Amino acid sequence: MASSMSSAFLAAKSTTSANPFPRSRRPAHAADRLGFPVPHLPGIASGSGRVVGIERRGRNVFRAHGPIRVGCSLIEPDGGALVDLVTPAGPAREARRREAALLPRVKLSRIDLEWVHVLSEGWASPLRGFMREAEFLQTLHFNCLRLGDGGAVVNMSVPIVLAIDDAQKRAVGDQRRVALVDANDNPVAILSDIEIYKHNKEERIARTWGTTAPGLPYVKEAITNAGNWLIGGDLEVIEPIKYNDGLDQYRLSPAELREEFSRRNADAVFAFQLRNPVHNGHALLMTDTRRRLLEMGYKNPILLLHPLGGYTKADDVPLSWRMKQHEKVLEEGVLNPETTVVSIFPSPMHYAGPTEVQWHAKARINAGANFYIVGRDPAGMSHPIEKRDLYDPEHGKRVLSMAPGLEKLNILPFRVAAYDKTQMKMAFFDPSRPQDFLFISGTKMRTLAKKRESPPDGFMCPGGWKVLVEYYDSLVSSESDKLCEAVPA
Amino acid sequence: MASSMSSAFLAAKSTTSANPFPRSRRPAHAADRLGFPVPHLPGIASGSGRVVGIERRGRNVFRAHGPIRVGCSLIEPDGGALVDLVTPAGPAREARRREAALLPRVKLSRIDLEWVHVLSEGWASPLRGFMREAEFLQTLHFNCLRLGDGGAVVNMSVPIVLAIDDAQKRAVGDQRRVALVDANDNPVAILSDIEIYKHNKEERIARTWGTTAPGLPYVKEAITNAGNWLIGGDLEVIEPIKYNDGLDQYRLSPAELREEFSRRNADAVFAFQLRNPVHNGHALLMTDTRRRLLEMGYKNPILLLHPLGGYTKADDVPLSWRMKQHEKVLEEGVLNPETTVVSIFPSPMHYAGPTEVQWHAKARINAGANFYIVGRDPAGMSHPIEKRDLYDPEHGKRVLSMAPGLEKLNILPFRVAAYDKTQMKMAFFDPSRPQDFLFISGTKMRTLAKKRESPPDGFMCPGGWKVLVEYYDSLVSSESDKLCEAVPA
Repeated sequence: MASSMSSAFLAAKSTTSANPFPRSRRPAHAADRLGFPVPHLPGIASGSGRVVGIERRGRNVFRAHGPIRVGCSLIEPDGGALVDLVTPAGPAREARRREAALLPRVKLSRIDLEWVHVLSEGWASPLRGFMREAEFLQTLHFNCLRLGDGGAVVNMSVPIVLAIDDAQKRAVGDQRRVALVDANDNPVAILSDIEIYKHNKEERIARTWGTTAPGLPYVKEAITNAGNWLIGGDLEVIEPIKYNDGLDQYRLSPAELREEFSRRNADAVFAFQLRNPVHNGHALLMTDTRRRLLEMGYKNPILLLHPLGGYTKADDVPLSWRMKQHEKVLEEGVLNPETTVVSIFPSPMHYAGPTEVQWHAKARINAGANFYIVGRDPAGMSHPIEKRDLYDPEHGKRVLSMAPGLEKLNILPFRVAAYDKTQMKMAFFDPSRPQDFLFISGTKMRTLAKKRESPPDGFMCPGGWKVLVEYYDSLVSSESDKLCEAVPA
Repeated sequence: MASSMSSAFLAAKSTTSANPFPRSRRPAHAADRLGFPVPHLPGIASGSGRVVGIERRGRNVFRAHGPIRVGCSLIEPDGGALVDLVTPAGPAREARRREAALLPRVKLSRIDLEWVHVLSEGWASPLRGFMREAEFLQTLHFNCLRLGDGGAVVNMSVPIVLAIDDAQKRAVGDQRRVALVDANDNPVAILSDIEIYKHNKEERIARTWGTTAPGLPYVKEAITNAGNWLIGGDLEVIEPIKYNDGLDQYRLSPAELREEFSRRNADAVFAFQLRNPVHNGHALLMTDTRRRLLEMGYKNPILLLHPLGGYTKADDVPLSWRMKQHEKVLEEGVLNPETTVVSIFPSPMHYAGPTEVQWHAKARINAGANFYIVGRDPAGMSHPIEKRDLYDPEHGKRVLSMAPGLEKLNILPFRVAAYDKTQMKMAFFDPSRPQDFLFISGTKMRTLAKKRESPPDGFMCPGGWKVLVEYYDSLVSSESDKLCEAVPA
């Protein structure tokens, strides 16, 4: 990875390692609420979010509704300013460290640490720590939080909570501050002005996933065996979270991403969330999106290619391999490094479909994205015990388009791409000639890679495919591949 | 019941039978958004609804935040105008009836008919019919609906949907209008501009109840065996829904209630939702609320005593017996008939706790109430398979205070009343002398009534208690008591 020469990767690398940004930055500019009214897609009625009709021959749609007003500053983060919870290096940090040594301790799991990372950099702005009960309840019931006294509403769809068990609760007693420690008992953060409340797992799961069926990956990993209490409070992180897996340089914070977009003079940022290898259908979509944004009047739309870096289920391709694959995609020119920023999104994955896609979009607003690409069944999976998709594949983008607090985000629905046998490349599906198209599912792709077979020419760039084949080879040669996954340290 | 002389009942009766209101009325006046900022209760942080600090020595609390501004018109219904879906009598109605005879038919269950009733009178304003998918999704995910293009948000927490099975779906085919018929195949309404979409029961249940445990009463009654499709559309009700159970005169519509409140020159309306007999603790709370509202500067606060009249679970006291009991409470002077309106709320009961209490409050806004009394564990019940309350008893009022779309409603938290042995009457619980108080639960009350034993003097007015004892006697003497329950016809 160190040898990567793509400027998409270089940008990330240079900004982080050579020129680290101060943690506290000026607040981002006022939102560039793109004032062009755009019609909802057919069937997306009563929505609140802007659904950009990019799959309906953009120009005409937009022209019919008045001139396009193109903003030139980045979208405002939720709550007006990015939250930064990392204590500055120096005497303050040392004082926190000394204090932490004397406080009751709460041990963090790997996923807890990922959430500390997420919170510390302001991905969940304006949230300033693990949720107290008022925030937890608003998240479960309304997927949004109201700020202050009758203030604005920000989206918040997944609970960001920290579970403790009875013994830990007893140990905390009446104290108002606790130390959060990693697996080696090193203090990572202080949680202050704490509130301990009941962890009703059943209700949390039912309201977040819309099912309580056994086998939901995040539930098995992080909820079933977690404690029966939740502890909320304000977070003061002692030092930036690092994973020491060779990928930390690609973990740009929202502030760093905003700085990078400003440096590149981006006048639009369109985010693409993914947890899978990039094939040429994805790439077509991304390049086509840029083309459409240019047509709409933007001068320099920048793509944020933003693989999820936290917990994923066992059969997803691990982050390190996905990053290698993405690197090849850039290297081989499938995406243009000049207009692409590749960075890692540190959140763990819930696989909570329509509920989670809101979180994925909201976090990207905080990183400066004002356009969000959403596909079929985002954050979805198969039902854990029934033979069907857990979520209606269309609900994700519909719910996203209606979500409170995401009104300022422009939602770009995925156009369906498939392998066009007549052109021998990935192309947008043409319903007038369905017989010419081949749909290659994720399962099909994995099966081919496992068998070291090649997909049709033009499905994925050769270097990217080679990485996938290597990954599945490595699985066969070693059962211990899971050790390769990043663990926050 | 016909002999009731309380003016609370008389009012209801006379307005409905002697002087029926025209169905289409002028829209209610602009909202009297009571402009006094009041602090939230301790522990109710980040809420959006006004929680009136009535249990914290009201005057001082309010005075500290500026003068009270008392409105003199009724609160505005959600969406600005009450929905009225009943076709006017005359040629239009006859035309609908003729048309209905020719349309595909969807048979309504008892609960479906109750929802037709609820919708037809505008309790769910601005909803104009059974939910289409966009409304269903917003209800499940956000407990609210956004009006029009970026418009205001109204609360809507329980899905009001109509299920059909595969055969009915096939019968509807491509038609845009269907007839809704009762158990005797009589057309009740036409549903137009219909949309048929999947009925994901598991997701609906999980997101509405926060559990999928078997044994939820409404689920067993109305969802488990319902069809796998939902049909939404605009409702045109052919004639007003009647039950012919001797209680129709007490079923005032929101428009009729508003007329009654105006007639009485109400400058505040405080609603009390109940599905249980009224004991003197309830009565104390209601009279004390009125006293406090007078202290706040209102000249004529009117109580809406509003028993739920739709589906309830088998062990709840049936509506007809509850109405008899409420009548005694008025007759015996426990509540003042001059400042009380007793009417029946036609909604079926979900027992969905914090989700449902929002519906209960929202519907009362539409009926003109600007204050809503909320107690411990509203719309709650025991967990169907675990030995615990299904919901945290405090969550109902907290969620209500934070619910989007209910900001204009003033929420009055219940003060805990219990039997004060030193005074031999129901009184507000005094935590400084807990030994003096006796808590008489619903279960305890039922057990006493079943055994024909008397509760302590002062727990309930004698006439009201007698009704309860008679009800349980009737259960013993006949297993067929359920036939007494109202069925919409």
